[in-house]
This record gives sequence, structure tokens and C-alpha cells, in this order.
Amino acid sequence: MDDLLTRLHEALRAGLPAEALITDPDVTASYAHDMASFCPAGTPAAVVLPRTVEQVQHVMRTATALRVPVVPQGARTGLSGGANASEGCIVLSLAKMDRIVEINPVDRIAVVEPGVVNAVLSRAVDDHGLYYPPDPSSWEMCTIGGNIGTASGGLCCVKYGVTAEYVLGLDVVLADGRLLSTGRRTAKGVAGYDLTRLFVGSEGSLGIVVGATLALRPRPPVQLALAAEFPSTAAACEAVCAIMERGHTPSLLELMDRTTVQAVNALANMGLPNTTEALLLCAFDTPDPGADLAAVGELCVAAGATEVVPAEDAAESELLLQARRLSLTALETIKSATMIDDVCVPRTKLAAMLDGTSAIAEKYGLTIGVCAHAGDGNTHPVVCFDHADEDESRRARESFDEIMALGLALGGTITGEHGVGVLKKEWLARELGPVGVELQRGIKRTFDPLGILNPGKIF
Amino acid sequence: MDDLLTRLHEALRAGLPAEALITDPDVTASYAHDMASFCPAGTPAAVVLPRTVEQVQHVMRTATALRVPVVPQGARTGLSGGANASEGCIVLSLAKMDRIVEINPVDRIAVVEPGVVNAVLSRAVDDHGLYYPPDPSSWEMCTIGGNIGTASGGLCCVKYGVTAEYVLGLDVVLADGRLLSTGRRTAKGVAGYDLTRLFVGSEGSLGIVVGATLALRPRPPVQLALAAEFPSTAAACEAVCAIMERGHTPSLLELMDRTTVQAVNALANMGLPNTTEALLLCAFDTPDPGADLAAVGELCVAAGATEVVPAEDAAESELLLQARRLSLTALETIKSATMIDDVCVPRTKLAAMLDGTSAIAEKYGLTIGVCAHAGDGNTHPVVCFDHADEDESRRARESFDEIMALGLALGGTITGEHGVGVLKKEWLARELGPVGVELQRGIKRTFDPLGILNPGKIF
Ligand SMILES: Cc1cc2nc3c(=O)[nH]c(=O)nc-3n(C[C@H](O)[C@H](O)[C@H](O)COP(=O)(O)OP(=O)(O)OC[C@H]3O[C@@H](n4cnc5c(N)ncnc54)[C@H](O)[C@@H]3O)c2cc1C
Ligand SMILES: Cc1cc2nc3c(=O)[nH]c(=O)nc-3n(C[C@H](O)[C@H](O)[C@H](O)COP(=O)(O)OP(=O)(O)OC[C@H]3O[C@@H](n4cnc5c(N)ncnc54)[C@H](O)[C@@H]3O)c2cc1C
Repeated sequence: MDDLLTRLHEALRAGLPAEALITDPDVTASYAHDMASFCPAGTPAAVVLPRTVEQVQHVMRTATALRVPVVPQGARTGLSGGANASEGCIVLSLAKMDRIVEINPVDRIAVVEPGVVNAVLSRAVDDHGLYYPPDPSSWEMCTIGGNIGTASGGLCCVKYGVTAEYVLGLDVVLADGRLLSTGRRTAKGVAGYDLTRLFVGSEGSLGIVVGATLALRPRPPVQLALAAEFPSTAAACEAVCAIMERGHTPSLLELMDRTTVQAVNALANMGLPNTTEALLLCAFDTPDPGADLAAVGELCVAAGATEVVPAEDAAESELLLQARRLSLTALETIKSATMIDDVCVPRTKLAAMLDGTSAIAEKYGLTIGVCAHAGDGNTHPVVCFDHADEDESRRARESFDEIMALGLALGGTITGEHGVGVLKKEWLARELGPVGVELQRGIKRTFDPLGILNPGKIF
Repeated sequence: MDDLLTRLHEALRAGLPAEALITDPDVTASYAHDMASFCPAGTPAAVVLPRTVEQVQHVMRTATALRVPVVPQGARTGLSGGANASEGCIVLSLAKMDRIVEINPVDRIAVVEPGVVNAVLSRAVDDHGLYYPPDPSSWEMCTIGGNIGTASGGLCCVKYGVTAEYVLGLDVVLADGRLLSTGRRTAKGVAGYDLTRLFVGSEGSLGIVVGATLALRPRPPVQLALAAEFPSTAAACEAVCAIMERGHTPSLLELMDRTTVQAVNALANMGLPNTTEALLLCAFDTPDPGADLAAVGELCVAAGATEVVPAEDAAESELLLQARRLSLTALETIKSATMIDDVCVPRTKLAAMLDGTSAIAEKYGLTIGVCAHAGDGNTHPVVCFDHADEDESRRARESFDEIMALGLALGGTITGEHGVGVLKKEWLARELGPVGVELQRGIKRTFDPLGILNPGKIF
């Protein structure tokens, strides 16, 4: 075992500059975990921080030769344990491959390395009058590679869709070190099976993304938001359904329940209405957002809103967004630990999902705060519990599972945007069924016959 | 062989109503071809027109048991031979599975059987104030199953994207007759690898689509168009680039070269300007399309347009669209046969693509009319030739290939929306490279280990 470790370090060193390889166990241990609770992680045998495609290829060739597992990592902000180290693995962090190679306003594409931070790219394309929509709330930290690994969503999805819709082509280093280019630089293309899309959301289990060609949009007008207070989450969900049924296309449609609102106020003093049962945030980036917001405001009142407060201006709108983006972080301060569900249901089932979630909270005697990308039906029930309290931890785990069962029963999915990782493996099998799992495993074998790429994740 | 045929017919008959099975060779022969030239086709052993999922499963179980190839078909409007019969195959036409199962305005989805004709679905959702964007020019004939099989595009793609972006979930009968459900009814979802997307564009080679959940949008305002005349295709392409660079989002941006304009006038007397070198059509379905068209008109003039004619109203706009939709059909009347290229290049390379195409036409002494989804960089050079003239046919084939070579050299793809089928098999390998082909074949084996699903297509 120690012999293998020595051989591994030597083999890695042979093709890497000194600063790209970390073998000090104190340091490598700090790369073991992403941000999910309750997910087992092993001890890495080495951490590699490559700067070139060739260095990544060297790592994969070495891993194949020595049959050592490889776990790719971006910023480790993942919420499902997908980036957790497995025992004796090489952690392959793409964080230093962070160049923006090209931004092309006519072709409306950006070509980037995987370690570029989402917000850095967003700001860079903004300088060209362009827009890269996917905006997970972790955008100031998370990387494009991690966004592709998890097929990340965010606040903008209700209008602009998820990461998957912006990935045109990929450069991928395969398990055996060969380089594959998928997709295209063009707006359209149907040559062969869509391997690009297969890699998006594959959580590092099919190959290492070392480059991406991303679609951009023209920068839309600055969005204007309103906040509406509701006496119940059900009433807020009714408003959501009415807004969508009437054909509106908000650029944001988010829900925060009372627990979430109070947690955000406690953390950041944002001045949100502390006693409302459900706060709905809606924004438009249309040419006349005021008119759209007025129409939505009326629908909110019809659904029972007690207060509808349009933002004065863009700056106030941005404050509302910031409050929403703080939700997860704020809910994490309630107890020593959290488990974050990511169930997505058809919009028509959103009220049932939220009512069911609060029944589950009551049944298990737990605080479960909910924030939701309501326009997409994507809820994040955050189960708050005390890590040291064994019984509460057990109840947390059970309620977390029961929420997924509810989501499936309502025709939804166990994960709208955070991925499966380690956390939801058993649940994936329930969602996909045996035939689906068999085919997915078949695909995994085609790309990674030795099973060295992020083993133990997804299924 | 005849024994196999008898056994096949008996086995099929055992699980199908009489009217679902056609064995009369005169009738089955009429199912041999789609609409592509130069594509070999075999003689079907039987044609099945199922009405239920169970009947499709029976066909696939029978095919697996007897090792007989199966070729799924929609309306056979395909332009790459993808639906052509292979020798002794079962043609499985989904045309009779044509029910619209559900249209849901809140969840913004439609659930359909594969044989629904595109225009029928479009009209049905329109009745609910909804919009199903993908609109191949063949929309009055082609089926949703065929659209999914080829990942079809159309005129709306420049704003609304291709079929792939509207397929949320699929029911698929696998090669061995098992039923697989992929994807979801929800707006988002990342549970496992994206099998849904893998089936889209797989040209019937991975499974039989028997049901689809499609995403809908709210119906946009009626679009208004303009037509701009240019002294050269290069000048028109310059306008296209300027329009996109300035951040416009037209709902349509199409180009017809002189040959195409004249062919359409000859066929339908549409009153298009007969002497222009390039006609650009641009439309907006924004709240104020007049203002957008005025801005675009200025960009056209700056790029050298000699005439810019805004449509008077929606009806006149629709006429312009109809003219554009007639392009392929009109070009087909020039000579006894056509070969239709489908090269898509980055927008910045569009002018080079069109100039190169006319150089190729000159080199081979042929008429090659070009219509293009210009906003997407997707060109359809239509090589016109006389089928009976051997030398001209050879030149047609060579120029057809040279156009694809040019597209690849310009960083494009050999097929933007028509698929690979039989016509572009060799070229797919050139585009994907050996590693890509190997992985694609691996996926094919995972889904269809016996190789009975639409064999001889794609690769
Ligand atoms: C406060 C907070 C808010 C969040 N909000 C959102 C939200 O709104 N929406 C949302 O979707 N998520 C959200 N997340 C989750 C997380 O930020 C996203 O999943 C993000 O995409 C992860 O990016 P990362 O760079 O941190 O990737 P990591 O966590 O390091 O990795 C994620 C997965 O991708 C794989 N991977 C990483 N890089 C590569 C690569 N180059 N090649 C192949 N595989 C790779 C990893 O193996 C792992 O499976 C949030 C997280 C936090 C902490
Ligand atoms: C005049 C004209 C204009 C056209 N314009 C356009 C255009 O603008 N954009 C564009 O993209 N295309 C266009 N096309 C091409 C063609 O119409 C499209 O490719 C269309 O999607 C084919 O649909 P279909 O029902 O005719 O399918 P078919 O031609 O019958 O089949 C197409 C492919 O899908 C497979 N298939 C069909 N049904 C199923 C199923 N249920 N399950 C699995 N596989 C299946 C077949 O095996 C085949 O490989 C045009 C064609 C014509 C003749």
C-alpha cells in the first residue's frame, strides 16, 4: 500500500511541475469534502492542480496504469458529496486552469478552461454586452467545470434555463488519458449522438472537462423585482401557477418561507418582512418591466397576497436577489448542521410539495426551512439539525428521505440541480428504475471500463 | 430466407391486429425511401403501423427473437436517408400513434405520441395560448417522432432553439422490447446521465420513441418581418453579423440567394425581387417589432442593402415566411434531382461559406442554390442535377462532399439539423474523429447489442 503510494507520487511527479503536486497529508486532507453533510469521504493519496491539458492527460494515464481512482474537483461548493475524495484517490482540482480563452460577440460564444469562476466569466462577458445566464447562488465561488459537472441551475433558470443549455462543446480527457472533443462552435449541430450533453451533469464520472465552448446571449435590460407577502405557502404557489398560466416570462420567480426569511434577516438584517408566511420574489428583464410587474402584482393579490412591494429601482431589486441568494447560508446558521433537499416537481404540484414538507417537519419535530426556485417547481427544503444529537440526526436523515419520496410521488425528480453525488444514490435508482440504471451503468462502462473516474458516486 | 419471411409474418401477426401489419410487397415497397437522393434502400420484409406501446413492444421482441432489423419511420420527409428501409427489415411506422395526450398550460408541457404531425401539435397548443417552437419547413407533414429522431430545426431556431431543447422526457421501447422512461415532467432535473438528450437526434438507432413530454412556451406576439435586398451574399452575411453583434434577437433571420429567389418565384409567383443577389428575411416577435425592424433595416443599409422592405402587416410577414419555406421544394424543380447540404458554420464564417459554395458550383459547372438559416450559420446548398446524366450526377456528388469539407475547414459541422442518415456517414467519421466514433459505437452497443435498430445509419 505504501509502496503503491510511493510509486504513485513518483509517477505523477514525472510529468508534473513541482507546484502542481501536493502530497503532504495535512494539505491533501483539506481537499476531502465538498459542502454536503452526511457524505462519507476518503483520504486522498495526492492532490494535483494542473495548469495544462497535457498535465491532466498525464494524471489520467498514470491513474489508468496504476488503477488509482481520480476525483475531479472545482471549487468544492457541491451539495451532494459529488466532489468528495474516495480512499486513496488522486484529487484532480481544475481550479488553476482558469483562463478565459475567447469571448466572441458575433458568434455569441465564450471558450473557457474549467476552473474559471462563474462570476468572473459573467462579469467578463458583461463587458462585451453579453450575458452568461447560469447563476447558482454560489456563483462567486463555484467553477464552470463544477457547473458542468452538476448541470447547475440558479435564479435565472425560469427564463433562461440551466447550464446544460449553454454548453455547445467540450474538451474532455478520458479515463485513459486520450483527449476527446465533443460538440461544436456553431449555433446548431446534430452530427452523431449528443456526447456534450452526456457529460453535462455526469459529476466527473465519465471524463475530465478541460475546456468548454459556451453559448452567450445578448445582455438583457436590467431586471426589476417585486416582493409579495402571502399568508400561506399554498397561496404563494397559487400565484406562481397563475403567473405562468397567464403567459408571463419572469426572469426570476423565487419563494422563501417564513423560516428562511427570518434566518436571512437574522444573518444580514435585510429588512425582509419578518412575519410573512411566504415571500414571493418576481422580476422581469423585459423592455417594460414595470407593466409586467403591475400585472403580476394583481395576480398575487388575487391569490391572497397581503402586501405587494415593487422595488424602487434596479439597486433595490438587486438587494432582494442578494437576500434570496443568502437563503442557504442563512438556514445553515439555525442549527449545527443542515441537509439540503433539491426536489423539483411540476409547477402544478408545488403547493402540495410545500404542504407535504411542512407536515414532514412536524412529524419529525424538526425545523425545515424552504427556499425554492418556485417558477421551476424546484424546492430546497433545508433540514436543520444538531450534529451532536444522534436522535435528531437520524430524524433529519429520515425526513430528508421522506421529502424525496414525496417529490417522486408528486411526479417530480429527486434533484433539480444539485446532482446525485453520494447523498442520493439509493434514490436515483428509485427514480430511474432498473432498466434506466442498467443503461446508465452501460454508458459508464463505455467511458470508464476500469471504473477509476469518481467511483462510488451517482450509482 | 422465404422461411424466415413466413416465420416473421406469423410472429408479427400473433401480437398485432390485422390492419396494423402490411406484407403485400407492392405496398411495403412504397415505404422504402425518405426524401433524400442518392441513398440506397432495401426492400422491407413487412411494414407495421402500431397503435399502442404494447404493439411496438411486440414488434421489437419479435425482431430480437428473429434477429431482424427494424427501421422506425415517421412521415419519411427526412433528407438524409435515415428512414430508408434496409434489406429484409421491419419498417415500423409510428404514423398512426398520433394522439395528443395532454396539454398543460401551467406546467407548460404537452404529452404526445410520436406520430403527431408537427403542425397539428402547433395548432393545438396555440388554442391554449401556448407555443411549440420547432418548425421545420416540412411541418405540415413531418412527425414529432421524426423531429426527435433528427433533432430537427426550422426557421424559429435563431431565437427559440431546436427540437432538442423542447424534449423533457421520453418513453422509449428498447431493442429487446423493454420500455424505458427517461427524463421528467418538471422544468429542471439532473438525476443521472441525460438519456433523453441521447435519444434526440439518434435517428432511430437507440430505441423507438413511443411517447414524448415536450416543453411549451407562452405564445409570443405575432411576428413582423422585413425583406432586404443585397448586391452580394457577402454583404447580406455582413448584415447578419452586425445584427447579432448589436444584440438583436430576431425570431427569424433567413437568407435566400438569387437562384432560390427565382425558383420560388417560378414555382409560386410570390413576387420576390427576381434580380437580387441575396434576399435577407428578418422578423421580430417582440412587443415593439416595428422599432426592432427599423434598427435592423439601418444595419442592412449600412452593410450595403439596396432595398429594405418592411412587411405591411402580419399577413404580409406570413407570406414572406411561406416563400422561404418553399425554398427546398422550389429548388427541386430546377433539375430532375437535388442533393441538399446542411452545413452549419460559426456565424462569422457564413460569408466565407457562401462564397466558397459558389466557387464550388463554378468549379463543377453546376447550379447550387442556397437558402440558409442565416442567423444560425446553417446553410442549405442545394445541388441541382440531372439524374440521368451520369457525369453530372458524379459532379453533383463530388460538389456535395466538397461543401461538407469546406464547412469542416471553417470550423463548422456537416449537419445542422437534417442528420447523418446514410448520406453523410463517411463525413461523420471525419467530423468526430476516431475517439469520438469509438465512444459513439460503444453507446450504440449498450442500447442495441444485436445491432437490429436502424442498422447502417449514422456510422
Ligand atoms: C451557498 C451555496 C449556494 C448554492 N446555490 C446553488 C444554486 O443556486 N444552484 C445550483 O445548481 N447549485 C447551487 N449550489 C451547489 C454548487 O455550488 C453547484 O453544484 C456548483 O455547480 C458546484 O461547482 P464547484 O466548482 O464547486 O464544483 P465541485 O463541487 O468541486 O464539483 C461538483 C461536481 O462536478 C465534478 N467536477 C468538477 N469539475 C469538473 C471537471 N472539470 N470535469 C469533470 N467533473 C468535474 C465533481 O467531481 C463533482 O461531481 C450552491 C452551493 C452553495 C454552497
Ligand atoms: C420540404 C422539406 C423541408 C424541410 N425543412 C426542414 C427544416 O426546415 N428543418 C429540418 O430540420 N428539417 C427539414 N426537413 C427534413 C425533415 O422534414 C425533418 O428531418 C423531419 O424531422 C423528419 O420527420 P419525419 O416524421 O418525416 O421523420 P422520418 O423522415 O420518417 O424519420 C427521420 C428519422 O427519425 C427516425 N424516427 C422517426 N420516428 C421515430 C420514432 N418514433 N422513434 C425513433 N426514431 C424515429 C427515423 O428512423 C429516421 O432516422 C425538410 C424536409 C422537406 C421534405
